Amino acid sequence: MKLVLLILGLGLASACFAQDSLIFRKISNEIMLHGTCYDNLRVLTKTVGNRISGSPAAAKAVVWGEKTMKETGADKVYLQPANVPYWYRGKEHLWLKMGRKYHEVEALSLGNSQGTNGKILKAEVIMVHNYDEFKALPESEVKGKIVFFNYRFRQDLILTFEGYGDAVKYRGGSPSVAAEKGAVGVIIRSMSTAVDDFPHTGGMYYKDSTKKIPEMSLGNITADALEKACEKGGVMAKMKSQCHMMPALVPSYNVIGEIKGTETPEKIITIGGHLDSWDVGEGAMDDGAGCVQSMEVLRVFKALGIRPKCTIRAVLFMNEENGQKGGQAYADSAFSKHEKHIIAIETDAGGFSPRGIGMNVNAKQREKIQRYKDLFLPYGVYDFSHEEGGSDIEPIHKKLDIPLAGLMPDCQRYFDYHHTNNDILENVNHRELKLGAVVLAQFIYLVSEQGLD
Amino acid sequence: MKLVLLILGLGLASACFAQDSLIFRKISNEIMLHGTCYDNLRVLTKTVGNRISGSPAAAKAVVWGEKTMKETGADKVYLQPANVPYWYRGKEHLWLKMGRKYHEVEALSLGNSQGTNGKILKAEVIMVHNYDEFKALPESEVKGKIVFFNYRFRQDLILTFEGYGDAVKYRGGSPSVAAEKGAVGVIIRSMSTAVDDFPHTGGMYYKDSTKKIPEMSLGNITADALEKACEKGGVMAKMKSQCHMMPALVPSYNVIGEIKGTETPEKIITIGGHLDSWDVGEGAMDDGAGCVQSMEVLRVFKALGIRPKCTIRAVLFMNEENGQKGGQAYADSAFSKHEKHIIAIETDAGGFSPRGIGMNVNAKQREKIQRYKDLFLPYGVYDFSHEEGGSDIEPIHKKLDIPLAGLMPDCQRYFDYHHTNNDILENVNHRELKLGAVVLAQFIYLVSEQGLD
Repeated sequence: MKLVLLILGLGLASACFAQDSLIFRKISNEIMLHGTCYDNLRVLTKTVGNRISGSPAAAKAVVWGEKTMKETGADKVYLQPANVPYWYRGKEHLWLKMGRKYHEVEALSLGNSQGTNGKILKAEVIMVHNYDEFKALPESEVKGKIVFFNYRFRQDLILTFEGYGDAVKYRGGSPSVAAEKGAVGVIIRSMSTAVDDFPHTGGMYYKDSTKKIPEMSLGNITADALEKACEKGGVMAKMKSQCHMMPALVPSYNVIGEIKGTETPEKIITIGGHLDSWDVGEGAMDDGAGCVQSMEVLRVFKALGIRPKCTIRAVLFMNEENGQKGGQAYADSAFSKHEKHIIAIETDAGGFSPRGIGMNVNAKQREKIQRYKDLFLPYGVYDFSHEEGGSDIEPIHKKLDIPLAGLMPDCQRYFDYHHTNNDILENVNHRELKLGAVVLAQFIYLVSEQGLD
Repeated sequence: MKLVLLILGLGLASACFAQDSLIFRKISNEIMLHGTCYDNLRVLTKTVGNRISGSPAAAKAVVWGEKTMKETGADKVYLQPANVPYWYRGKEHLWLKMGRKYHEVEALSLGNSQGTNGKILKAEVIMVHNYDEFKALPESEVKGKIVFFNYRFRQDLILTFEGYGDAVKYRGGSPSVAAEKGAVGVIIRSMSTAVDDFPHTGGMYYKDSTKKIPEMSLGNITADALEKACEKGGVMAKMKSQCHMMPALVPSYNVIGEIKGTETPEKIITIGGHLDSWDVGEGAMDDGAGCVQSMEVLRVFKALGIRPKCTIRAVLFMNEENGQKGGQAYADSAFSKHEKHIIAIETDAGGFSPRGIGMNVNAKQREKIQRYKDLFLPYGVYDFSHEEGGSDIEPIHKKLDIPLAGLMPDCQRYFDYHHTNNDILENVNHRELKLGAVVLAQFIYLVSEQGLD
């Protein structure tokens, strides 16, 4: 009897598998042939462009998001308020004297940083390669200087997000570290894997206890030149910038679209990317890609007439880059409404060919998903072993302790473009972008129909 | 006793595994931090550029190849003669009248094709979507016309090489098919996954029995416009081109470098790409990437002091694109010298992130390689299931029946650039290119030390 049940069970399982495999193929065909995510990304990048939180461009992006979300055929589309900070860049210049004369170089002030109030800050440049070297310097050698933190992105790490995690502390924290010893400014080598000269911006944060000194980043080629010059000594810099944090928060929104579940509509699966970007380039990869992929999931379900058991919610989060106010507002709302989230998924690692889905789930849940691993192989997805979530869904995880997941695309190119003027549509490939949306829709279909537990 | 042996065996196996894993890491670190393949590709693409077989540029590429091969530290570097065809493009124009006036459009004559001898060929354009539609047309509707074969690259196929295999017959064979019904010329939609207007060239071949009519390709955007115009009817075209095959073969060479094996130097592992390219763009991805990766394998062995048991031979094959004369010369030489090749490996699928190594081996050999699968996972390589070889190593396979393998990089972008003016260095990512070389060196190390049988 047990054997019969087992055989019956196996038969059912393989029938389900075949059925799922068929739906997976339909999802893929629909998106690869008729997907709108790439065209949507073109509109976002070319008509809105970059869109830092609180800016007029971000407000325009919300309008675009709401309109585009409606075009997916979502059952319900709405805006969720979140007040966000607004960091303003303004004009900026960096001149380096690495020989006899000053030359202006490409540089970007780091996000959230305080500039020079439009005045010229002139000082000698001293170079350190890491915090240990900096700690070993006596205060007398730092006082009144601009410190060049010349830490290289570790190219030997195959997963570039590990290299980023390793290097990013020099972007976020070095001004406060340097100010403690009396430095007047900081220059950093960008968190960049590229062999070009694009400087990378990104978030930095001051300690309350230290002076807010300016921070600028260099692309790798200029950083190499500065490194050589600093080895000889006598390098001077002139910084001039207007950047500052605006005094008041600005009203803004998450854009949300939903397909109502047929069997358990109270159970929600959230998939999202972030709508804001840094104020350079077009925010194509970071994270226009994630926004259009999240909306593509809704569109493909509607186009194929798939009526999921659970409610599927696509969220374009506001203010991921410098405050996570959108993610916080989402978590607060879910908490106050006693919403039940099965899982929240983020796509914020670029529109590259998918390779895996990382998960912050328990062992049993991971095992369950891994049982379906072979279904994903024809789409190039093989890796379900990593821990992964995302900045926008971290607040709801903290508040409601729900499972998280994150799309893991190929990561080799991400930190070539991340937070630069080179993060433009032309560096996103339409097939890679669509394939990421395919895998997200497949994963969400699977979780909706089979559950996680 | 058996159990003890088994445990001992497992212990040894896992010790070997740990040892291999360490060497894999060393290979990766060396190439990711100090690899020269990207810099070498820069020199090839920017100082030689495209290099069709038989051309002065191809001769220059041979000089570059020999010099660069020597810089790897190879024990022996030599040239292997091969006489190759030389197809000459010259000037070319295509004007389409899709409304009231003729407009010149971007177009490329297909490789090996005969042009219009510099005269204007003017005719009405008729469109078919595939060979079945063409077969159904009466001769009277074809005679004197230019046939537009408007077959779309199947974007629903996730492995783009499958889409290419499906579509490429319209590039290779349509002029002879069309000429049989009296057509005077052929226009094709390029074998292109791209959302741009770059036309793709590539090899075509005439049947001996039919007239040699000219063939030109269009990028997807112009092909879309022509499709719309043809649906309305009354489209005219004027072709003018000088392309032709030169009457005589031209002396040329494969470039070969070797590291002599320490234990079984008579056993050879060949790794190669092709040095020739089509006469557009820079031949960066097809197949400058494969050439510099093959040389990187020799360099990393030398740099790390790895002394392989077997002889490792890197080959830059000449004339892959339109004749395989280099591959043939290599096979003939190996045959006449009674060489023993363990395996021949080709890298000619672009310098993108590696995902697998396809193999044309027997079941037992595949099983042996798959036992080492986990060693490759940290480098993003998980797929050893496909049958794969390469055009340059096909002749030696036919002649000596040896195992073959081919690097399988991510294939989503390949047919955006393949055979176009957009196949330039800027579309090859340095980390992806290096990672491909890492995996090739690891695979070759494994086969050299563990054998295939």
